[in-house]
Amino acid sequence: MKAVLLHSGGLDSSVLLYHLRDQGHDVAALSVRYGQRHHREIDAAAAICVRAGVEHRVADLAGLRELLVGSALTDDAVAMPTGGYGIDNMKQTVVPNRNMVLLSVAGAWAVSLKADAVAYAAHGGDHEIYPDCRPAFADAMATALSLCDWHAPQLLRPFVDMTKADIVRRGDELNVPFELTWSCYQGGDQHCGDCPTCRERKKAFAEADVDDPTIYDPTV
Amino acid sequence: MKAVLLHSGGLDSSVLLYHLRDQGHDVAALSVRYGQRHHREIDAAAAICVRAGVEHRVADLAGLRELLVGSALTDDAVAMPTGGYGIDNMKQTVVPNRNMVLLSVAGAWAVSLKADAVAYAAHGGDHEIYPDCRPAFADAMATALSLCDWHAPQLLRPFVDMTKADIVRRGDELNVPFELTWSCYQGGDQHCGDCPTCRERKKAFAEADVDDPTIYDPTV
Repeated sequence: MKAVLLHSGGLDSSVLLYHLRDQGHDVAALSVRYGQRHHREIDAAAAICVRAGVEHRVADLAGLRELLVGSALTDDAVAMPTGGYGIDNMKQTVVPNRNMVLLSVAGAWAVSLKADAVAYAAHGGDHEIYPDCRPAFADAMATALSLCDWHAPQLLRPFVDMTKADIVRRGDELNVPFELTWSCYQGGDQHCGDCPTCRERKKAFAEADVDDPTIYDPTV
Repeated sequence: MKAVLLHSGGLDSSVLLYHLRDQGHDVAALSVRYGQRHHREIDAAAAICVRAGVEHRVADLAGLRELLVGSALTDDAVAMPTGGYGIDNMKQTVVPNRNMVLLSVAGAWAVSLKADAVAYAAHGGDHEIYPDCRPAFADAMATALSLCDWHAPQLLRPFVDMTKADIVRRGDELNVPFELTWSCYQGGDQHCGDCPTCRERKKAFAEADVDDPTIYDPTV
């Protein structure tokens, strides 16, 4: 089937790209610019799609930025937290309603393409501080997508019960070019190794017992 | 309660603005630029909000335009239909997944503002050719919105069982400045009077037995 994949350029959605192809799907990848600081991830998404030979489009929703106040990901006035994931510290990185916005745009493109599905890499390790990563939210969006058009896409979320380490293991089986993926929220040229997403990334490779090819900034 | 209203500048959402205010809600209005030809409606929305003394924001999602191919509303390669609403003729004006995109953006702003609700003017007269106007779709989006954040907005759609003529009657009771609202899809400086939305507008005023203050282009 033809599937539109929400592709951030990060670990999870990059593994999902290879996973969908492995299952025989025809994948079209979509990245969304919503004013995030870490736009480096969109370059990563582009490089991975070139490597995989998959069509890649970038939807520019930077006009959303002024609506999305109060998140460290989009608002320069809010400091980016460092250290491990913690409720207090990471609430600052919640972009309001991000997954609904991303799924709606992917749904729009899927309807245009008459694609059969929208896919995204929500997973069981997603933190409780991201309410729009909850399975119940994904289920409601799946219902809404199934009603949004006469030829409505289904919502694929095959990683919803997997941990991030499970995803790394799956990526390892599929020879995903992990070195091209991007996780860091800090917006530098190298992974900082210290922000919450870098720590999550390191931890997932360690738990999966898979070599981590990431070059972390040695000065951080 | 505080409600973010999706406000196109058209008849239905303008009446909803006054209806919500009449019910004592604190309204913030949101218009979305998604590459539509009839951007005249956003000027109308701005004028109505000034008149009503309501905060108005415009989210610029024009970057969506290239994804939304094949609709007469956004794609210059597709001719705008004229004459009455008919399935074949109006399918060209379906913007893929438009209501999900609009509701997701309104939801993002509502979460940012810690608003209690998102409101939109889906109504019972919405045509069967717009799948994302169906009550079942609205119900699924209401569920998704209720899960998108810890402080999640509810979805208000008080006109869902009303006809467009009912909405005109309600607007008349509320002294809505109908002359400031905009319906025409053609993108001219006056209502053309001949496109499907102009015909719907005329019909609603006639059925409601309310004076239609619209100046229709006499040359069409």
